[in-house]
Amino acid sequence: MATDEKLIVFVIYPGLTALDLIGPVAALGHLGAPYKAVVAAETTDPFPVNGGLLMMGATKTFDEVPNPYVIVVPGGGMPTIKAMANPAIQKYLRESAPGAEYVTSVCTGALILAAAGLLEGRRAATHWGYWPELEKLGAKYEHKRWVEDGKFITSAGVAAGIDMAIYLASKLTSVERAKEIQKGMEYDPDPPFGPVDWTGALESIPQPQDWPDADKAAVKEALALKPELYDRLMA
Amino acid sequence: MATDEKLIVFVIYPGLTALDLIGPVAALGHLGAPYKAVVAAETTDPFPVNGGLLMMGATKTFDEVPNPYVIVVPGGGMPTIKAMANPAIQKYLRESAPGAEYVTSVCTGALILAAAGLLEGRRAATHWGYWPELEKLGAKYEHKRWVEDGKFITSAGVAAGIDMAIYLASKLTSVERAKEIQKGMEYDPDPPFGPVDWTGALESIPQPQDWPDADKAAVKEALALKPELYDRLMA
Repeated sequence: MATDEKLIVFVIYPGLTALDLIGPVAALGHLGAPYKAVVAAETTDPFPVNGGLLMMGATKTFDEVPNPYVIVVPGGGMPTIKAMANPAIQKYLRESAPGAEYVTSVCTGALILAAAGLLEGRRAATHWGYWPELEKLGAKYEHKRWVEDGKFITSAGVAAGIDMAIYLASKLTSVERAKEIQKGMEYDPDPPFGPVDWTGALESIPQPQDWPDADKAAVKEALALKPELYDRLMA
Repeated sequence: MATDEKLIVFVIYPGLTALDLIGPVAALGHLGAPYKAVVAAETTDPFPVNGGLLMMGATKTFDEVPNPYVIVVPGGGMPTIKAMANPAIQKYLRESAPGAEYVTSVCTGALILAAAGLLEGRRAATHWGYWPELEKLGAKYEHKRWVEDGKFITSAGVAAGIDMAIYLASKLTSVERAKEIQKGMEYDPDPPFGPVDWTGALESIPQPQDWPDADKAAVKEALALKPELYDRLMA
Protein backbone atom coordinates (compact mmCIF):
# COMPACT_ATOMS: atom_id res chain seq x y z
CA MET A 1 0.00 0.00 0.00
CA ALA A 2 1.15 3.52 -0.73
CA THR A 3 2.82 5.08 2.29
CA ASP A 4 0.73 8.26 2.07
CA GLU A 5 -2.48 6.27 2.58
CA LYS A 6 -4.20 6.64 5.91
CA LEU A 7 -5.89 3.37 6.75
CA ILE A 8 -9.26 3.22 8.44
CA VAL A 9 -9.36 -0.34 9.75
CA PHE A 10 -12.63 -1.96 10.80
CA VAL A 11 -11.82 -4.87 13.10
CA ILE A 12 -14.29 -7.71 12.64
CA TYR A 13 -14.86 -11.12 14.21
CA PRO A 14 -17.45 -13.93 14.20
CA GLY A 15 -20.81 -13.15 15.74
CA LEU A 16 -20.58 -9.36 15.82
CA THR A 17 -23.71 -7.23 15.52
CA ALA A 18 -23.71 -6.16 11.90
CA LEU A 19 -25.15 -2.67 12.41
CA ASP A 20 -22.30 -1.81 14.81
CA LEU A 21 -19.98 -2.26 11.86
CA ILE A 22 -22.09 -1.18 8.92
CA GLY A 23 -23.24 2.18 10.35
CA PRO A 24 -19.64 3.44 10.56
CA VAL A 25 -18.78 1.72 7.26
CA ALA A 26 -21.47 3.85 5.60
CA ALA A 27 -20.04 7.08 7.06
CA LEU A 28 -16.29 6.31 6.93
CA GLY A 29 -15.91 3.61 4.32
CA HIS A 30 -15.73 5.81 1.25
CA LEU A 31 -13.96 9.05 2.21
CA GLY A 32 -11.43 8.82 -0.64
CA ALA A 33 -7.75 9.83 -0.59
CA PRO A 34 -5.78 10.03 1.58
CA TYR A 35 -8.05 7.61 3.43
CA LYS A 36 -8.46 3.98 2.57
CA ALA A 37 -11.00 1.90 4.44
CA VAL A 38 -10.26 -1.75 5.08
CA VAL A 39 -12.33 -4.43 6.80
CA ALA A 40 -9.86 -6.74 8.53
CA ALA A 41 -10.06 -9.92 10.59
CA GLU A 42 -7.88 -12.74 11.78
CA THR A 43 -8.54 -14.50 8.47
CA THR A 44 -10.58 -13.62 5.39
CA ASP A 45 -12.84 -16.66 5.80
CA PRO A 46 -16.48 -15.53 6.01
CA PHE A 47 -18.24 -16.13 9.32
CA PRO A 48 -21.80 -15.80 10.65
CA VAL A 49 -23.01 -12.55 12.21
CA ASN A 50 -26.27 -11.58 13.90
CA GLY A 51 -26.80 -15.04 15.31
CA GLY A 52 -26.23 -16.76 11.97
CA LEU A 53 -28.68 -14.66 9.98
CA LEU A 54 -26.04 -13.86 7.36
CA MET A 55 -22.38 -14.30 6.55
CA MET A 56 -19.75 -11.62 6.53
CA GLY A 57 -16.10 -11.61 5.55
CA ALA A 58 -13.07 -9.33 5.74
CA THR A 59 -10.92 -8.58 2.70
CA LYS A 60 -7.66 -8.23 4.66
CA THR A 61 -6.04 -9.93 7.62
CA PHE A 62 -4.69 -7.98 10.60
CA ASP A 63 -1.15 -8.81 9.45
CA GLU A 64 -1.77 -6.93 6.22
CA VAL A 65 -2.76 -3.65 7.88
CA PRO A 66 -0.25 -3.15 10.72
CA ASN A 67 -0.38 0.66 10.75
CA PRO A 68 -3.95 1.91 10.94
CA TYR A 69 -4.64 5.63 11.17
CA VAL A 70 -8.14 4.93 12.52
CA ILE A 71 -9.34 1.77 14.25
CA VAL A 72 -13.06 0.97 14.54
CA VAL A 73 -14.15 -1.93 16.75
CA PRO A 74 -17.80 -3.03 16.54
CA GLY A 75 -19.60 -4.88 19.31
CA GLY A 76 -22.18 -7.59 19.85
CA GLY A 77 -23.36 -9.91 22.58
CA MET A 78 -21.63 -13.06 23.81
CA PRO A 79 -19.39 -13.32 20.71
CA THR A 80 -17.98 -9.92 21.67
CA ILE A 81 -17.21 -11.18 25.17
CA LYS A 82 -15.36 -14.00 23.44
CA ALA A 83 -13.51 -11.50 21.24
CA MET A 84 -12.25 -9.82 24.43
CA ALA A 85 -10.10 -12.89 24.96
CA ASN A 86 -9.22 -13.51 21.29
CA PRO A 87 -5.42 -13.50 21.00
CA ALA A 88 -5.31 -12.21 17.39
CA ILE A 89 -7.62 -9.28 18.08
CA GLN A 90 -5.93 -8.40 21.35
CA LYS A 91 -2.48 -8.57 19.76
CA TYR A 92 -3.59 -6.39 16.86
CA LEU A 93 -5.09 -3.75 19.14
CA ARG A 94 -2.14 -3.68 21.55
CA GLU A 95 0.34 -3.34 18.70
CA SER A 96 -1.54 -0.95 16.43
CA ALA A 97 -3.41 1.32 18.84
CA PRO A 98 -0.31 3.22 20.07
CA GLY A 99 0.46 4.48 16.56
CA ALA A 100 -3.13 5.15 15.52
CA GLU A 101 -4.56 8.65 15.44
CA TYR A 102 -8.05 7.56 16.52
CA VAL A 103 -9.10 4.39 18.30
CA THR A 104 -12.85 3.99 18.27
CA SER A 105 -15.55 1.53 19.19
CA VAL A 106 -19.25 0.99 18.76
CA CYS A 107 -21.45 -0.61 21.40
CA THR A 108 -19.66 -3.36 23.34
CA GLY A 109 -16.66 -2.90 21.08
CA ALA A 110 -15.54 -0.73 24.00
CA LEU A 111 -15.20 -3.90 26.09
CA ILE A 112 -12.73 -5.25 23.54
CA LEU A 113 -10.70 -2.04 23.80
CA ALA A 114 -10.91 -2.21 27.59
CA ALA A 115 -9.78 -5.85 27.56
CA ALA A 116 -6.67 -4.69 25.70
CA GLY A 117 -6.03 -2.25 28.55
CA LEU A 118 -6.72 0.77 26.35
CA LEU A 119 -9.50 2.42 28.36
CA GLU A 120 -7.95 2.30 31.82
CA GLY A 121 -9.10 5.40 33.67
CA ARG A 122 -10.71 6.86 30.56
CA ARG A 123 -14.23 8.17 30.08
CA ALA A 124 -16.06 5.91 27.65
CA ALA A 125 -19.44 4.86 26.26
CA THR A 126 -20.83 1.43 25.46
CA HIS A 127 -24.22 -0.22 25.03
CA TRP A 128 -26.34 0.82 28.02
CA GLY A 129 -26.93 -2.83 28.97
CA TYR A 130 -23.20 -3.37 29.48
CA TRP A 131 -22.17 -0.32 31.46
CA PRO A 132 -21.22 -2.29 34.61
CA GLU A 133 -18.78 -4.47 32.63
CA LEU A 134 -17.12 -1.41 31.13
CA GLU A 135 -16.59 0.08 34.58
CA LYS A 136 -15.28 -3.21 35.96
CA LEU A 137 -12.69 -3.13 33.20
CA GLY A 138 -11.38 0.23 34.33
CA ALA A 139 -13.27 2.85 32.30
CA LYS A 140 -15.62 5.56 33.54
CA TYR A 141 -18.92 4.98 31.78
CA GLU A 142 -20.89 7.93 30.41
CA HIS A 143 -24.39 7.57 28.99
CA LYS A 144 -23.84 9.65 25.84
CA ARG A 145 -24.08 8.98 22.09
CA TRP A 146 -20.30 8.95 22.05
CA VAL A 147 -17.48 9.91 24.38
CA GLU A 148 -14.17 11.38 23.23
CA ASP A 149 -11.20 11.03 25.59
CA GLY A 150 -7.91 11.79 23.92
CA LYS A 151 -7.71 9.69 20.79
CA PHE A 152 -10.34 7.27 22.03
CA ILE A 153 -13.86 7.78 20.75
CA THR A 154 -16.31 5.21 22.07
CA SER A 155 -19.97 5.21 21.10
CA ALA A 156 -23.09 3.91 22.75
CA GLY A 157 -24.93 0.85 21.46
CA VAL A 158 -25.42 -0.27 17.86
CA ALA A 159 -27.03 2.67 16.00
CA ALA A 160 -25.02 5.23 18.01
CA GLY A 161 -22.06 4.25 15.86
CA ILE A 162 -23.63 6.22 13.01
CA ASP A 163 -23.61 9.46 15.00
CA MET A 164 -20.05 8.81 16.18
CA ALA A 165 -18.83 7.99 12.69
CA ILE A 166 -20.33 11.14 11.16
CA TYR A 167 -18.59 13.14 13.87
CA LEU A 168 -15.32 11.33 13.15
CA ALA A 169 -15.79 11.92 9.41
CA SER A 170 -15.92 15.64 10.17
CA LYS A 171 -12.62 15.42 12.05
CA LEU A 172 -10.97 13.48 9.22
CA THR A 173 -12.33 15.78 6.49
CA SER A 174 -14.56 18.76 7.32
CA VAL A 175 -17.98 19.50 8.74
CA GLU A 176 -19.12 20.36 5.23
CA ARG A 177 -18.01 16.98 3.92
CA ALA A 178 -19.53 15.13 6.87
CA LYS A 179 -22.86 16.79 6.15
CA GLU A 180 -22.62 15.69 2.51
CA ILE A 181 -21.99 12.13 3.65
CA GLN A 182 -24.97 12.35 5.98
CA LYS A 183 -27.13 13.55 3.09
CA GLY A 184 -25.82 10.84 0.78
CA MET A 185 -26.77 8.15 3.27
CA GLU A 186 -30.06 9.92 4.06
CA TYR A 187 -29.34 9.91 7.77
CA ASP A 188 -32.15 12.31 8.56
CA PRO A 189 -33.60 10.18 11.31
CA ASP A 190 -37.25 10.22 12.27
CA PRO A 191 -37.91 7.31 14.63
CA PRO A 192 -41.61 6.50 14.20
CA PHE A 193 -42.26 6.42 17.95
CA GLY A 194 -39.95 9.24 18.97
CA PRO A 195 -36.82 9.14 21.10
CA VAL A 196 -35.99 6.31 23.50
CA ASP A 197 -37.33 6.61 27.04
CA TRP A 198 -34.32 5.98 29.28
CA THR A 199 -36.17 6.14 32.57
CA GLY A 200 -34.77 3.50 34.89
CA ALA A 201 -32.79 1.79 32.12
CA LEU A 202 -29.30 2.05 33.59
CA GLU A 203 -30.50 1.22 37.09
CA SER A 204 -32.09 -1.99 35.79
CA ILE A 205 -28.76 -3.50 34.70
CA PRO A 206 -27.30 -5.90 37.26
CA GLN A 207 -23.66 -5.89 38.34
CA PRO A 208 -21.73 -8.93 37.04
CA GLN A 209 -21.41 -10.45 40.52
CA ASP A 210 -25.22 -10.50 40.68
CA TRP A 211 -25.73 -12.32 37.38
CA PRO A 212 -27.53 -15.68 37.44
CA ASP A 213 -25.11 -18.60 37.67
CA ALA A 214 -25.82 -19.68 34.09
CA ASP A 215 -24.78 -16.25 32.80
CA LYS A 216 -21.64 -16.30 34.92
CA ALA A 217 -20.73 -19.71 33.55
CA ALA A 218 -21.29 -18.63 29.95
CA VAL A 219 -19.12 -15.52 30.36
CA LYS A 220 -16.44 -17.50 32.17
CA GLU A 221 -16.32 -19.95 29.29
CA ALA A 222 -16.22 -17.15 26.69
CA LEU A 223 -13.26 -15.64 28.54
CA ALA A 224 -11.49 -18.96 29.12
CA LEU A 225 -8.39 -17.82 27.21
CA LYS A 226 -8.03 -14.81 29.48
CA PRO A 227 -9.41 -15.76 32.92
CA GLU A 228 -8.10 -12.57 34.53
CA LEU A 229 -10.82 -10.67 32.64
CA TYR A 230 -13.51 -12.80 34.24
CA ASP A 231 -11.96 -12.24 37.65
CA ARG A 232 -12.03 -8.50 37.03
CA LEU A 233 -15.70 -8.58 36.05
CA MET A 234 -16.57 -10.46 39.24
CA ALA A 235 -14.42 -8.33 41.55
CA MET B 1 -39.60 -25.19 7.73
CA ALA B 2 -42.59 -25.32 10.03
CA THR B 3 -45.73 -24.18 8.26
CA ASP B 4 -46.70 -21.76 11.04
CA GLU B 5 -43.50 -19.78 10.54
CA LYS B 6 -43.85 -16.38 8.95
CA LEU B 7 -40.74 -15.73 6.92
CA ILE B 8 -39.14 -12.29 6.71
CA VAL B 9 -36.93 -12.60 3.64
CA PHE B 10 -34.14 -10.11 2.99
CA VAL B 11 -33.28 -10.26 -0.72
CA ILE B 12 -29.58 -9.68 -1.30
CA TYR B 13 -27.29 -9.43 -4.32
CA PRO B 14 -23.68 -8.48 -5.15
CA GLY B 15 -22.73 -4.85 -4.69
CA LEU B 16 -25.63 -3.73 -2.51
CA THR B 17 -25.19 -0.95 0.04
CA ALA B 18 -24.77 -2.81 3.31
CA LEU B 19 -26.59 -0.31 5.54
CA ASP B 20 -29.73 -0.63 3.38
CA LEU B 21 -29.83 -4.25 4.46
CA ILE B 22 -28.37 -4.15 7.94
CA GLY B 23 -30.56 -1.34 9.33
CA PRO B 24 -33.73 -3.41 8.75
CA VAL B 25 -31.92 -6.59 9.80
CA ALA B 26 -31.30 -4.96 13.20
CA ALA B 27 -34.97 -4.06 13.62
CA LEU B 28 -36.64 -7.09 12.01
CA GLY B 29 -34.04 -9.85 12.14
CA HIS B 30 -34.73 -11.12 15.63
CA LEU B 31 -38.47 -10.78 16.31
CA GLY B 32 -38.88 -14.38 17.40
CA ALA B 33 -41.85 -16.69 16.75
CA PRO B 34 -43.91 -16.75 14.65
CA TYR B 35 -41.39 -14.77 12.59
CA LYS B 36 -38.22 -16.19 11.16
CA ALA B 37 -35.82 -13.88 9.38
CA VAL B 38 -33.82 -15.23 6.45
CA VAL B 39 -31.21 -13.57 4.26
CA ALA B 40 -31.59 -15.06 0.80
CA ALA B 41 -29.86 -14.70 -2.55
CA GLU B 42 -29.53 -16.47 -5.87
CA THR B 43 -26.76 -18.59 -4.31
CA THR B 44 -25.15 -18.70 -0.88
CA ASP B 45 -21.70 -17.81 -2.28
CA PRO B 46 -20.40 -14.69 -0.53
CA PHE B 47 -19.99 -11.58 -2.72
CA PRO B 48 -18.52 -8.10 -2.30
CA VAL B 49 -20.66 -5.23 -1.06
CA ASN B 50 -19.96 -1.51 -0.60
CA GLY B 51 -17.59 -1.41 -3.55
CA GLY B 52 -15.59 -4.40 -2.34
CA LEU B 53 -14.97 -3.15 1.19
CA LEU B 54 -16.26 -6.38 2.69
CA MET B 55 -17.90 -9.66 1.78
CA MET B 56 -21.42 -10.73 2.56
CA GLY B 57 -23.32 -13.94 2.05
CA ALA B 58 -26.86 -15.29 2.29
CA THR B 59 -27.69 -18.43 4.23
CA LYS B 60 -30.56 -19.51 1.95
CA THR B 61 -31.29 -19.43 -1.77
CA PHE B 62 -34.50 -17.95 -3.16
CA ASP B 63 -35.68 -21.47 -4.01
CA GLU B 64 -35.59 -22.39 -0.32
CA VAL B 65 -37.92 -19.58 0.79
CA PRO B 66 -40.74 -19.52 -1.77
CA ASN B 67 -43.43 -18.18 0.53
CA PRO B 68 -42.23 -15.05 2.35
CA TYR B 69 -44.58 -13.20 4.68
CA VAL B 70 -42.42 -10.08 4.44
CA ILE B 71 -39.97 -9.18 1.65
CA VAL B 72 -37.25 -6.57 2.20
CA VAL B 73 -35.21 -5.40 -0.80
CA PRO B 74 -32.15 -3.23 -0.10
CA GLY B 75 -30.62 -0.87 -2.65
CA GLY B 76 -27.30 0.46 -3.80
CA GLY B 77 -25.77 2.20 -6.80
CA MET B 78 -24.97 0.68 -10.20
CA PRO B 79 -25.12 -2.93 -8.86
CA THR B 80 -28.75 -2.25 -7.95
CA ILE B 81 -29.45 -1.08 -11.50
CA LYS B 82 -27.97 -4.39 -12.59
CA ALA B 83 -30.16 -6.27 -10.08
CA MET B 84 -33.20 -4.69 -11.76
CA ALA B 85 -32.45 -6.94 -14.73
CA ASN B 86 -31.31 -9.99 -12.75
CA PRO B 87 -33.55 -12.92 -13.79
CA ALA B 88 -33.34 -14.77 -10.44
CA ILE B 89 -34.30 -11.71 -8.39
CA GLN B 90 -37.02 -10.66 -10.77
CA LYS B 91 -38.46 -14.18 -10.87
CA TYR B 92 -38.41 -14.43 -7.09
CA LEU B 93 -40.17 -11.09 -6.63
CA ARG B 94 -42.79 -11.74 -9.29
CA GLU B 95 -43.60 -15.16 -7.87
CA SER B 96 -43.45 -14.39 -4.15
CA ALA B 97 -44.76 -10.83 -3.89
CA PRO B 98 -48.41 -11.71 -4.64
CA GLY B 99 -48.61 -13.99 -1.60
CA ALA B 100 -46.59 -11.79 0.74
CA GLU B 101 -48.23 -9.68 3.41
CA TYR B 102 -45.70 -6.85 3.11
CA VAL B 103 -43.35 -6.06 0.26
CA THR B 104 -40.79 -3.47 1.26
CA SER B 105 -37.67 -1.77 0.00
CA VAL B 106 -34.90 0.48 1.21
CA CYS B 107 -33.31 3.16 -0.94
CA THR B 108 -33.02 2.13 -4.60
CA GLY B 109 -34.41 -1.27 -3.68
CA ALA B 110 -37.65 0.41 -4.84
CA LEU B 111 -36.25 0.39 -8.39
CA ILE B 112 -35.92 -3.39 -8.18
CA LEU B 113 -39.57 -3.65 -7.11
CA ALA B 114 -40.55 -1.26 -9.88
CA ALA B 115 -38.60 -3.28 -12.44
CA ALA B 116 -40.71 -6.27 -11.44
CA GLY B 117 -43.82 -4.22 -12.21
CA LEU B 118 -44.84 -4.07 -8.55
CA LEU B 119 -45.02 -0.29 -8.09
CA GLU B 120 -47.02 0.64 -11.19
CA GLY B 121 -49.19 3.64 -10.25
CA ARG B 122 -48.23 3.38 -6.59
CA ARG B 123 -46.89 6.06 -4.27
CA ALA B 124 -43.33 5.18 -3.28
CA ALA B 125 -40.06 6.44 -1.80
CA THR B 126 -36.48 5.84 -2.85
CA HIS B 127 -33.09 7.50 -2.42
CA TRP B 128 -33.55 11.19 -3.23
CA GLY B 129 -30.88 10.97 -5.93
CA TYR B 130 -32.91 8.40 -7.88
CA TRP B 131 -36.41 9.87 -7.81
CA PRO B 132 -36.60 10.45 -11.59
CA GLU B 133 -35.84 6.78 -12.29
CA LEU B 134 -38.57 5.66 -9.90
CA GLU B 135 -41.12 7.86 -11.66
CA LYS B 136 -39.99 6.67 -15.09
CA LEU B 137 -40.70 3.13 -13.91
CA GLY B 138 -44.29 3.98 -13.12
CA ALA B 139 -44.37 4.97 -9.43
CA LYS B 140 -45.33 8.32 -7.91
CA TYR B 141 -42.31 9.45 -5.89
CA GLU B 142 -42.80 11.02 -2.45
CA HIS B 143 -39.96 12.57 -0.48
CA LYS B 144 -40.75 10.92 2.86
CA ARG B 145 -38.88 8.61 5.26
CA TRP B 146 -41.12 5.85 4.00
CA VAL B 147 -44.31 5.53 1.98
CA GLU B 148 -46.97 2.92 2.59
CA ASP B 149 -49.31 2.09 -0.29
CA GLY B 150 -51.29 -1.07 0.28
CA LYS B 151 -48.86 -3.80 1.20
CA PHE B 152 -45.93 -1.94 -0.29
CA ILE B 153 -43.73 0.01 2.11
CA THR B 154 -40.83 1.74 0.41
CA SER B 155 -38.30 3.79 2.33
CA ALA B 156 -36.02 6.64 1.37
CA GLY B 157 -32.26 6.17 1.06
CA VAL B 158 -29.96 3.98 3.14
CA ALA B 159 -30.50 4.98 6.80
CA ALA B 160 -34.23 5.59 6.23
CA GLY B 161 -34.59 1.81 6.22
CA ILE B 162 -34.14 1.88 10.00
CA ASP B 163 -37.17 4.12 10.52
CA MET B 164 -39.23 2.05 8.08
CA ALA B 165 -38.22 -1.22 9.71
CA ILE B 166 -39.08 -0.03 13.23
CA TYR B 167 -42.48 1.01 11.90
CA LEU B 168 -42.90 -2.39 10.25
CA ALA B 169 -41.82 -4.12 13.46
CA SER B 170 -44.68 -2.34 15.21
CA LYS B 171 -47.14 -3.66 12.62
CA LEU B 172 -45.80 -7.22 12.95
CA THR B 173 -45.75 -7.13 16.77
CA SER B 174 -46.82 -4.03 18.70
CA VAL B 175 -45.76 -0.44 19.26
CA GLU B 176 -44.52 -1.48 22.68
CA ARG B 177 -42.31 -4.19 21.23
CA ALA B 178 -41.04 -1.90 18.46
CA LYS B 179 -39.98 0.62 21.09
CA GLU B 180 -38.13 -2.12 22.98
CA ILE B 181 -36.31 -3.07 19.79
CA GLN B 182 -35.44 0.58 19.23
CA LYS B 183 -34.05 0.79 22.75
CA GLY B 184 -32.10 -2.44 22.35
CA MET B 185 -30.41 -1.13 19.24
CA GLU B 186 -29.96 2.31 20.81
CA TYR B 187 -31.62 4.02 17.90
CA ASP B 188 -31.92 7.32 19.73
CA PRO B 189 -30.40 9.36 16.91
CA ASP B 190 -28.55 12.60 17.46
CA PRO B 191 -26.83 13.56 14.20
CA PRO B 192 -23.85 15.70 15.24
CA PHE B 193 -24.63 18.42 12.71
CA GLY B 194 -28.40 18.30 12.90
CA PRO B 195 -30.94 17.29 10.27
CA VAL B 196 -30.20 17.22 6.54
CA ASP B 197 -30.76 20.44 4.60
CA TRP B 198 -32.86 19.39 1.61
CA THR B 199 -32.96 22.81 -0.06
CA GLY B 200 -32.64 22.32 -3.81
CA ALA B 201 -31.70 18.64 -3.48
CA LEU B 202 -34.49 17.09 -5.55
CA GLU B 203 -34.33 19.83 -8.19
CA SER B 204 -30.60 19.13 -8.66
CA ILE B 205 -31.17 15.56 -9.90
CA PRO B 206 -31.20 15.29 -13.70
CA GLN B 207 -33.75 13.32 -15.68
CA PRO B 208 -32.30 10.12 -17.22
CA GLN B 209 -32.54 11.51 -20.76
CA ASP B 210 -30.25 14.36 -19.66
CA TRP B 211 -27.52 12.12 -18.22
CA PRO B 212 -24.03 12.36 -19.70
CA ASP B 213 -23.46 9.80 -22.46
CA ALA B 214 -21.07 7.77 -20.30
CA ASP B 215 -23.73 7.37 -17.61
CA LYS B 216 -26.33 6.36 -20.20
CA ALA B 217 -23.94 3.76 -21.60
CA ALA B 218 -23.20 2.33 -18.14
CA VAL B 219 -26.89 2.03 -17.26
CA LYS B 220 -27.68 0.54 -20.68
CA GLU B 221 -25.02 -2.09 -20.12
CA ALA B 222 -26.24 -2.83 -16.57
CA LEU B 223 -29.74 -3.36 -17.95
CA ALA B 224 -28.61 -5.39 -20.98
CA LEU B 225 -30.68 -8.40 -19.94
CA LYS B 226 -33.83 -6.30 -19.86
CA PRO B 227 -33.44 -3.54 -22.46
CA GLU B 228 -37.07 -2.46 -22.14
CA LEU B 229 -36.19 -1.02 -18.71
CA TYR B 230 -33.53 1.20 -20.26
CA ASP B 231 -36.01 2.35 -22.89
CA ARG B 232 -38.49 3.25 -20.18
CA LEU B 233 -35.89 5.27 -18.30
CA MET B 234 -35.04 7.23 -21.42
CA ALA B 235 -38.64 7.78 -22.54
